Amino acid sequence: MIDEATFFGEVSDTREEILEATYYALCEHGYAGLTISKIGTHFEKSQSLIYHHYDDKDGLLLDLLEYMLEQLERQVPFPDAAPEEYIDVVVDEMFDETGSQGGAFTQAVIELRAQAAHDEEYHELFRRSDDFIRKQLAQIIRTGADRGVFDVDDPKESAALFQTVLIGVQTARLTADTGTIAEAKAEFRRYVDTCLRA
Amino acid sequence: MIDEATFFGEVSDTREEILEATYYALCEHGYAGLTISKIGTHFEKSQSLIYHHYDDKDGLLLDLLEYMLEQLERQVPFPDAAPEEYIDVVVDEMFDETGSQGGAFTQAVIELRAQAAHDEEYHELFRRSDDFIRKQLAQIIRTGADRGVFDVDDPKESAALFQTVLIGVQTARLTADTGTIAEAKAEFRRYVDTCLRA
Repeated sequence: MIDEATFFGEVSDTREEILEATYYALCEHGYAGLTISKIGTHFEKSQSLIYHHYDDKDGLLLDLLEYMLEQLERQVPFPDAAPEEYIDVVVDEMFDETGSQGGAFTQAVIELRAQAAHDEEYHELFRRSDDFIRKQLAQIIRTGADRGVFDVDDPKESAALFQTVLIGVQTARLTADTGTIAEAKAEFRRYVDTCLRA
Repeated sequence: MIDEATFFGEVSDTREEILEATYYALCEHGYAGLTISKIGTHFEKSQSLIYHHYDDKDGLLLDLLEYMLEQLERQVPFPDAAPEEYIDVVVDEMFDETGSQGGAFTQAVIELRAQAAHDEEYHELFRRSDDFIRKQLAQIIRTGADRGVFDVDDPKESAALFQTVLIGVQTARLTADTGTIAEAKAEFRRYVDTCLRA
């Protein structure tokens, strides 16, 4: 749901340059393999600048997540398209694996999400991000219900299932083959067509 | 889906004693906080025995996952109950959070699953475990379809979505509140009643 290509289109200061370098190093090495030194190889200025801005790897990654979340909230992905058409775009994006550096970013995000198990700052950022996306989804579904193109019990319940499936696809992709992901997508489309559309 | 209470009911050798200690230490400390020394506090014999059997923490955790998977495969959860009733039990278990040491085990499993991003042995074990559970789900749904109580396009597709939602709930639970999980469950029940039942 995040279009990283637009994130760093207008890198304007050292912080954004560091965050961009972190993004690419994270895609390349994953959370476990990431070090400040590896981030430095994606950073054109002196590596000491990174240490000047951040205490450690987690401080930097938390700032990257925060930055991406702010961009996401500013972009507000709520579309002009009709809900009955846009919902198909949403389903495609949920199951899409071509974006985000060939899935490397999504994979890294799952590693970061696992940190939420024992780190309150990761926990809070993912909770905020999930809340934001779920509310956007509920708004799309509610608009469709108001216009009579969707027939649902409660837009919040539908949005909660969408989000569960989105997180499930991202996590399952660590181990599932593309055939299984495609099967899950076919069944989720069947759910959207049978349970959501009026 | 795993009933850990039965896993260590008949601990019969040192390996099983070590694995039991690892299980409880993992629930208590999570993956990131786990050390061989902390496992030792749950182990009645000498801690040096652990080092005698295992090189490091990951070797031990991989053996624990392997052991639990073998038990799961041996228990074969396919029930005597009618598919149209058993599917409700499955949905309850997918969204249940009271078992597994109050969710601590599920949380630890998500941390272990994240290791699959960069560790081939974790990758292979989760792939095998997911395949096993998905095939069991498909078998239940296929039996229901054969008996005319379910109406599905393809039991494999339905099973793939069930598994995606299961993994999604486990991962989402790291950050989601219980209200959101309950909303997702209500909508998933609506899917089962509308899209799965004949």
